[in-house]
Amino acid sequence: MQNTVYNPAVDNANNFTSVYGLPPNVTWPNPLSFGVTATFEDPITIGAARDSQQIGVGNGFWQIDSRQTYTLFHVFTANITEGEYKGIINIMGQLRESDAVRYMTVVGGTGDFLGARGLASCVLVVIDRTPPAKWTLSFELDLYY
Amino acid sequence: MQNTVYNPAVDNANNFTSVYGLPPNVTWPNPLSFGVTATFEDPITIGAARDSQQIGVGNGFWQIDSRQTYTLFHVFTANITEGEYKGIINIMGQLRESDAVRYMTVVGGTGDFLGARGLASCVLVVIDRTPPAKWTLSFELDLYY
Amino acid sequence: MQNTVYNPAVDNANNFTSVYGLPPNVTWPNPLSFGVTATFEDPITIGAARDSQQIGVGNGFWQIDSRQTYTLFHVFTANITEGEYKGIINIMGQLRESDAVRYMTVVGGTGDFLGARGLASCVLVVIDRTPPAKWTLSFELDLYY
Repeated sequence: MQNTVYNPAVDNANNFTSVYGLPPNVTWPNPLSFGVTATFEDPITIGAARDSQQIGVGNGFWQIDSRQTYTLFHVFTANITEGEYKGIINIMGQLRESDAVRYMTVVGGTGDFLGARGLASCVLVVIDRTPPAKWTLSFELDLYY
Repeated sequence: MQNTVYNPAVDNANNFTSVYGLPPNVTWPNPLSFGVTATFEDPITIGAARDSQQIGVGNGFWQIDSRQTYTLFHVFTANITEGEYKGIINIMGQLRESDAVRYMTVVGGTGDFLGARGLASCVLVVIDRTPPAKWTLSFELDLYY
Repeated sequence: MQNTVYNPAVDNANNFTSVYGLPPNVTWPNPLSFGVTATFEDPITIGAARDSQQIGVGNGFWQIDSRQTYTLFHVFTANITEGEYKGIINIMGQLRESDAVRYMTVVGGTGDFLGARGLASCVLVVIDRTPPAKWTLSFELDLYY
């Protein structure tokens, strides 16, 4: 979603990949990098830890769309390839860092998740702010059909 | 969503912020700026006027995705923090400027809008085309659960 | 969604338009162009062929959001203006090139498709990989209201 990166992050051993756009060239203060988008591909594990068993991959992008509070607008898919239920879940919504729980929308799914919609409740497990920042999120999905 | 801007707009007193991407460097005529994306954060008021009481914030992006007619493809959240109902509403859809009413899709919500889906009917209230252009939109939401 | 293009494609006679972002300037191998986004506006025909009767236009964008397999994450609208049913259908989902059938989500619609949600099953009809690559996709929609 950008042609230049200021903070490419790749972790080949663990299949994490991100590219971040440069902050926009604006004349006003932009400490939160309003307007920056990142593309990501990250493992999904069954437990809320990096060393938990991988069951899928998350692919998509987020965008910093607030100048007032650190907010990442997410549009992505969760591709679940291992476990009892397999398929794709499409998720969209806002992750405001100051919220203890971040509620996003499940807009649909395929495979075992065909026709699903519902709520994706996201909690921060741990964050390492050393650039490039690394964080672990835990998602609980309430799906209805 | 872009690393350079040609028309940054910020109105600190009223909390409007936008960054626009540069038009793509194409060899064919591109009068409508096909391919340009803008990130925005704008107030939501209870009435259809800039000086109406603010009840929330809209955050997201739009993209010019037609070369034939002026069309802004919107993906955004409405964060309602004041009033009888509070929560987030996720909206996606096309705003074709030539349409009197622009219909978008409510794809989900949180808080008091949990499980909502429906129709967002958008009408232009007023536009000031002096760069950077400023416009007021009125949204009516028909939600079902 | 980008301010520079490496492969602008326009076919004035048939109303195809695309702009592609430059690959991100990363230090790791990126053969699949992870992070690239394209904006597109393409005809929708009633049959699965370029010379079939046009009934509408598809507008939106896709993003290459996997480094492991060629995957285009789509967010777009299908604007159907001819035929028995008219209106807009909003679609979002992942197109993994290695899948024979690619399942996306219909997140909503307007006009005759008001309140629609469901499944968009996408199949590749033909691809011409000569740059700029050109391909024909066939969509079958299962909608419920």
